[in-house]
Amino acid sequence: MRRGIATVSLSGVLADKLDAIAEAGFDGIEIFDNDLTASPLSPTEVARRCSDLGLTVDLFQPIRDIEGIEPARFSDVLHRVRRKLEVMDQLGARTFLACSNALPTALDDPGLSAAQLHAVGELAADFGVTFAYEALAWGRHVNRVGQAWSLVQRADHPAVTLAVDTFHMLARGDDGTALAGIPGDRIGFLQVADAPVLDMNVLEWSRHFRCFPGQGMLDVSGVVAAVLDTGYDGPLSLEVFSDVVREADPYVTARDAMRSLLFLEDRLGARVSGVAREKVTVAPPLPARTDAAFVELADPDRSEYPALLTGLGFHLAGRHRSKPVTWWRNGGANVVLNERSAAGPAPTALGLVAPDVAAVSERAANLLWPAVDRTRGEGEADLPGITSPSGLHVFVSASPGEPDDWRRDFLPHDGTAEPQPGGNDWLGLDHVDVTVTADDLNQEMSFFRTLFGLRPEDPEEYIQPHGRLRIRALRAEQGDLRVALQVSEAGSAPRRRGITQLAFATADAVGAVRRARARGVEFLRPPANYYADLDARFALGTDLLTVLRENDLFYDRNDEGGELLHAYTLPVQGGFQVELLERRGGYSGYGAADAHVRLAALTAPTTVASTVT
Amino acid sequence: MRRGIATVSLSGVLADKLDAIAEAGFDGIEIFDNDLTASPLSPTEVARRCSDLGLTVDLFQPIRDIEGIEPARFSDVLHRVRRKLEVMDQLGARTFLACSNALPTALDDPGLSAAQLHAVGELAADFGVTFAYEALAWGRHVNRVGQAWSLVQRADHPAVTLAVDTFHMLARGDDGTALAGIPGDRIGFLQVADAPVLDMNVLEWSRHFRCFPGQGMLDVSGVVAAVLDTGYDGPLSLEVFSDVVREADPYVTARDAMRSLLFLEDRLGARVSGVAREKVTVAPPLPARTDAAFVELADPDRSEYPALLTGLGFHLAGRHRSKPVTWWRNGGANVVLNERSAAGPAPTALGLVAPDVAAVSERAANLLWPAVDRTRGEGEADLPGITSPSGLHVFVSASPGEPDDWRRDFLPHDGTAEPQPGGNDWLGLDHVDVTVTADDLNQEMSFFRTLFGLRPEDPEEYIQPHGRLRIRALRAEQGDLRVALQVSEAGSAPRRRGITQLAFATADAVGAVRRARARGVEFLRPPANYYADLDARFALGTDLLTVLRENDLFYDRNDEGGELLHAYTLPVQGGFQVELLERRGGYSGYGAADAHVRLAALTAPTTVASTVT
Repeated sequence: MRRGIATVSLSGVLADKLDAIAEAGFDGIEIFDNDLTASPLSPTEVARRCSDLGLTVDLFQPIRDIEGIEPARFSDVLHRVRRKLEVMDQLGARTFLACSNALPTALDDPGLSAAQLHAVGELAADFGVTFAYEALAWGRHVNRVGQAWSLVQRADHPAVTLAVDTFHMLARGDDGTALAGIPGDRIGFLQVADAPVLDMNVLEWSRHFRCFPGQGMLDVSGVVAAVLDTGYDGPLSLEVFSDVVREADPYVTARDAMRSLLFLEDRLGARVSGVAREKVTVAPPLPARTDAAFVELADPDRSEYPALLTGLGFHLAGRHRSKPVTWWRNGGANVVLNERSAAGPAPTALGLVAPDVAAVSERAANLLWPAVDRTRGEGEADLPGITSPSGLHVFVSASPGEPDDWRRDFLPHDGTAEPQPGGNDWLGLDHVDVTVTADDLNQEMSFFRTLFGLRPEDPEEYIQPHGRLRIRALRAEQGDLRVALQVSEAGSAPRRRGITQLAFATADAVGAVRRARARGVEFLRPPANYYADLDARFALGTDLLTVLRENDLFYDRNDEGGELLHAYTLPVQGGFQVELLERRGGYSGYGAADAHVRLAALTAPTTVASTVT
Repeated sequence: MRRGIATVSLSGVLADKLDAIAEAGFDGIEIFDNDLTASPLSPTEVARRCSDLGLTVDLFQPIRDIEGIEPARFSDVLHRVRRKLEVMDQLGARTFLACSNALPTALDDPGLSAAQLHAVGELAADFGVTFAYEALAWGRHVNRVGQAWSLVQRADHPAVTLAVDTFHMLARGDDGTALAGIPGDRIGFLQVADAPVLDMNVLEWSRHFRCFPGQGMLDVSGVVAAVLDTGYDGPLSLEVFSDVVREADPYVTARDAMRSLLFLEDRLGARVSGVAREKVTVAPPLPARTDAAFVELADPDRSEYPALLTGLGFHLAGRHRSKPVTWWRNGGANVVLNERSAAGPAPTALGLVAPDVAAVSERAANLLWPAVDRTRGEGEADLPGITSPSGLHVFVSASPGEPDDWRRDFLPHDGTAEPQPGGNDWLGLDHVDVTVTADDLNQEMSFFRTLFGLRPEDPEEYIQPHGRLRIRALRAEQGDLRVALQVSEAGSAPRRRGITQLAFATADAVGAVRRARARGVEFLRPPANYYADLDARFALGTDLLTVLRENDLFYDRNDEGGELLHAYTLPVQGGFQVELLERRGGYSGYGAADAHVRLAALTAPTTVASTVT
């Protein structure tokens, strides 16, 4: 497939955009007229620059509101089109885009509109070019792809074709079936964009919240597959407007965009056949399942982490064959302490079990996710590392017992640190919270989604004392991995980025907290008012309330009777917290109802002053 | 009137919120249950703290979804209410708020809902308190105030009253007439909030975009006047949720909130009568008209400003009687150069003619806008200065010829610098651009609106090469003052704050630019592509196009044939630009269509490197 992108999808001035697009490896571009108008480069200079960079100008976007025009004013439209065709000729573009009329003055007269499209087609033919007519989702009278196709047919001119835009179709509730029966050679252009599902004015949604495929929730690949099945042979071209990309570095955006197209093609591999199937790039398959394996704490200064881990009931389970790295374990929960990493003290990496390891590694390379630089000793497991957009290192291990199982790199400990009493029964790592910037959120979601197939859950938002905390949780479809991406919008007080919470699952939260407290671990204390509120909300028995209160446990219950008991340590060196949680009866959430209490408790002066370093 | 505010309207933890609310002079509060639940203060400690601070607890917000409940689950509701009433008893509150059921499971059975409200009323009566039932704008079945009133009547219990919330009513299209016939003693509480008019999901609108009265566009005073006319005798209580206040300093927000209530009462003065009229605080009237008088440039280092002003055609018109300040003039345009201010070199103040000066000064004090500290020499004009939230100084002068006319402070220049040829014909200051932070925008609008009655125009948004530029223009209803507030959302590159552009009106933009260029002033150069686009859009004659191009002029034309010709200097010392503009045929905008071209031209390396200091 030819891969394209609209210049409007990037920030910067036109010259910078062209460089960034070429560097990311695109084949072609759509030139947004405002970018050209504001540029000191003449159209012929732009054409030359594109040619030097190996980019074709696949589309020009110079015009809107060309049909549904009061006849007396239509000559103005033809004047505009003619002038823009002169510019287009210098650009060397062969197709321009024209959107359905969105003006309040647009006339609702399909016969008139078709005749006007025909007249514009005549003019285009004079210049030897064609145009693609698109149904804007907020077009005044034409806002569905079926209406646009009907006008294109009625215009009955070879220079008048249909433009398909995944966002405009999906935003109006159309899917690929709306394209049934349209011949591929009548589709003049395909624009591709994804978006989160938002209940808002569609124009504002489109202008501020579009994103690249795989970052949103629309069935983009369904529409694209339907277009390819028609025999459409043109480029897949990304057209994204968003407040995030408008402020981002265009080189970063261009790479991110290319990655999203590769992911889209990968998805298309399973949805198209025949000729189209051969054209798309298919990456090695997603891992069969993805489970959490370990968290790595960088500990260059031999900090308080061993004491913390011991307090939590972990025991030293092994030492790395060749590196100053130790493995700590409590039942199914594993932590790796790396004394060599200079990035700490802090949690810096996440280990996953995601077979087939070689396929994941190749898939990451295919999708342009960068590898972690690392050395591997003789006979040690091949544990490929991939760096997420926010800088998190993710290491991928084979299943237990396989040659590339991460545990094989560790020599069993000599036995002086046996499991503590009741200290080897944790179930594993339930989830990690990864705090990212607002600008990184889409990319970080894309990383986990495209590489491991994690499914994003609905956005959540909590009130902190000094701002909002936005959360997007992602969860493996097969396997136990959960990652909660967090964006803290709290003006003056930015939180540490990276892993800010390790949540371990236990079958006995009360016992786990009791034992940890007895060993000196300090927990965040919910206020008494919180327990009074729990009683009001859930009519808990006195016994349970007392146990919760005495052990600093938060509690939630869902409509199906599933329960969550959980507690949080105070923030520890490196600015993260450890959560201990017990899920009962299929409770699958994260305790949203008590988040505001926890966040407020964190701001208490005694909490912060004594523990965050 | 008693003045109140909900704790949810401020950021921070409960103890901080109470201090901030008390410091701003409020009489009472609404306690949002989440604030209490998350607080280490017990309810009795909160009650004591409020009492120490002179605050009454006017309302408690502990509960939602108490009607439309499946009968089998209603005992859970009564349990919740009972527990919360116990807490409320300790808080010393006499009224709680209950919103209409917004759950998907809510039953659409008015008889059942009324009976359940009655049952909750019985329970409230047991505790000697009442509750106010509110129609949430997104309530499942009850979302209009008329529906809520109908259920309150049908519940037929003295402890069950109606809550009125200006946002919920106005968001659903109701105005004060919806309250006709409701007795004042059946309205249990009045919550007040404003909002910009946004076409979006009403729940999201309410959660993220509410603002204080005078900052939005809803007819808040109309609803409040209708409530007061019923005889309602309770507090006016502000309940605002917004992303902006969630990140703001609670002390700043509380003062801003108090100011908005004073402004609301001022507006009510004209809309209510009788007893209610006596209760509201009425500030001195708005000025009869507000005209731009001068811009002050702070110039401590005797910078390039005199050369710039001379180049633009200004001449030295006077020297201040007692201060190192000079007055420069070009026709109706006036600039004051202050060599003593340490704040420059930069534009720092705006001078207005807004009679009656004494009334404006008193009005500012009434509305808590802070005065500028300054000295006044004997016999000099009383030119009160007021500081806007963003730090702009605004000086208010009497009309020309009056004793407090600002010109009287200047001794005429000795005549060595007569007006230059063609250099005394400018019409005046057309507008200034004031760049503020996103957090300051609402307050800055409120400043100009409450003090001078400026009317905000619709929000506009432009794309810059590296982000968005949001603009709210404000304009005097009587008089020529225009101020365009700008918020630059462009990630890494914050613009200077304060006055970033001075726009002067002329009847001959072409001549003005020609003369200024001849004197060495450098103008921003639009690219050639821009003129090709102008030709496409407007079919301009070759002569006009040539004149525009040769003089670096931007051009716009509206549907009524009104035209704008305007040009911008390169940025000068202090980081601002001077715009020269000519309005023809009633054109009243600011040239929105060319903003992206201008903003892109500003980023050209040659532009920025050589001129911004």
